[in-house]
Amino acid sequence: MTPTIGVFDSGFGGLTVLRALVARFPHARFVFLGDTARLPYGSKSRRTIARYAAQSAQFLVNQQGAEFLVIACNTASALALDAIQEAVTVPVLGVIEPGAAAARAASRTGDVLVIATDATVQSHAYSAACRAQGLRALEKACPLLVPLVEEGWTGPSVSGTAGGASAPPQMAVTAEVIRIYLAELTAEAAAEGLNPDTLVLGCTHYPLLRPLIERAVPAGMRVIDSAEATADVVARRFGPQEAEKHSPAAQLRCFATDSVEKFERLGSRFLNRPTGKVELVDLGG
Amino acid sequence: MTPTIGVFDSGFGGLTVLRALVARFPHARFVFLGDTARLPYGSKSRRTIARYAAQSAQFLVNQQGAEFLVIACNTASALALDAIQEAVTVPVLGVIEPGAAAARAASRTGDVLVIATDATVQSHAYSAACRAQGLRALEKACPLLVPLVEEGWTGPSVSGTAGGASAPPQMAVTAEVIRIYLAELTAEAAAEGLNPDTLVLGCTHYPLLRPLIERAVPAGMRVIDSAEATADVVARRFGPQEAEKHSPAAQLRCFATDSVEKFERLGSRFLNRPTGKVELVDLGG
Repeated sequence: MTPTIGVFDSGFGGLTVLRALVARFPHARFVFLGDTARLPYGSKSRRTIARYAAQSAQFLVNQQGAEFLVIACNTASALALDAIQEAVTVPVLGVIEPGAAAARAASRTGDVLVIATDATVQSHAYSAACRAQGLRALEKACPLLVPLVEEGWTGPSVSGTAGGASAPPQMAVTAEVIRIYLAELTAEAAAEGLNPDTLVLGCTHYPLLRPLIERAVPAGMRVIDSAEATADVVARRFGPQEAEKHSPAAQLRCFATDSVEKFERLGSRFLNRPTGKVELVDLGG
Repeated sequence: MTPTIGVFDSGFGGLTVLRALVARFPHARFVFLGDTARLPYGSKSRRTIARYAAQSAQFLVNQQGAEFLVIACNTASALALDAIQEAVTVPVLGVIEPGAAAARAASRTGDVLVIATDATVQSHAYSAACRAQGLRALEKACPLLVPLVEEGWTGPSVSGTAGGASAPPQMAVTAEVIRIYLAELTAEAAAEGLNPDTLVLGCTHYPLLRPLIERAVPAGMRVIDSAEATADVVARRFGPQEAEKHSPAAQLRCFATDSVEKFERLGSRFLNRPTGKVELVDLGG
């Protein structure tokens, strides 16, 4: 029996984790909360992040009946997992350890690269999680990738382009930005004597860039998506969900603390289906 | 006699306005406050922005002795100028009206384009200010430009490049992003029957992109920088500052409510000289 799964993010990027979970549990009940009024978490102190994340977790568990909680936010996973686990009585899973564990399973050389936001890199949470898995990790902040995803410059369906087989100029920009970042990162890895064979996508926005990133990495390099890795851990925990006759489709309720319009507009691309009506919730200051 | 000039922004982009002011008043005393703990203002309600901006203005006036206040923040200028004027007893100038007035002086067709952040465009403050000047304005949000500036992908001195005469790939990306945005904007202007001859840079980060933007606009189009236009208004108000014998150089104190490290690291590029030690100040929640 799959429990009601609560998914929390500071914004709506965590919808890529929800998408990966829905693919594995197509008949479960999900509640998602984006604390959009108080983002970005990345520039705030650990104490403030812990307070916000604990409030958000309590909303999902105490008011929405979540029986299992996924923290689909790298910053909160890095800085507030303990605080969230103390704040609620249900099991809590972050995105960083599953990403590191999947990297260990994928890597033969033991050297991995991690791309993420500035805040996640500064926390060095992926380095620490990789070290705990016996891996050496080199992290790089790629601050342009989130705004490129939010602009929709990720594929041939961006606005203002004719579509078709040729890459529109917007997608070419994103591909070039990825090429520059990866060239800098692999050059730095070589300078440090690393021999990386695995790249971890350490930001919940990056799954939307996966096709472009896979084209840009050196031949033979594996790409690990923390969102997929996290959903795999949940799937292993609860086993495959068997569809009974007349099983209902996954039920999904999305909440946000602000910016419902942007959430609904961009969220469906992250979730790969409509978010439905996003409900506004006030968690206080 | 030039007064002590207080300059306020939600972040450090307003340092481009301070730079323009220092160029005109090389012997004045300046105090700058970046409310970095509470940015971005753009996603917050008008009431919250008004409260934050009023607190910040009172700090500059009551605690730092500012006798004239420049709101070097488009969002606060658009949404909180009245609230700031009520909160302090000194004259207050925003960046939007000077930008619109400079556009009127520059434009012969009466049609102008405005590029800005998403929040500034959504406020339609430039449209309103241009309309008050008898201009028709078409605004466009360019969300990638601020992160490109903050990454330093604006010129040949970015890290990881050999420099020299050829444009590094990072600068080529920024030039291409500008080309795409301006192509979309001029196509939209043509579709609406406008004949624009002036482009207003409605974001305090954009002066760092001015050389690239000037290369990208259609021949004959004037580029108006709100930061320069605002400093011009202040200069006209107080007249040219005459250097007396042994006049001291401009005195400058910078305050921030958080993220002093990023402020010091990036701020000197915006200010075109070192910010000096940025002092942390707590304005409360």
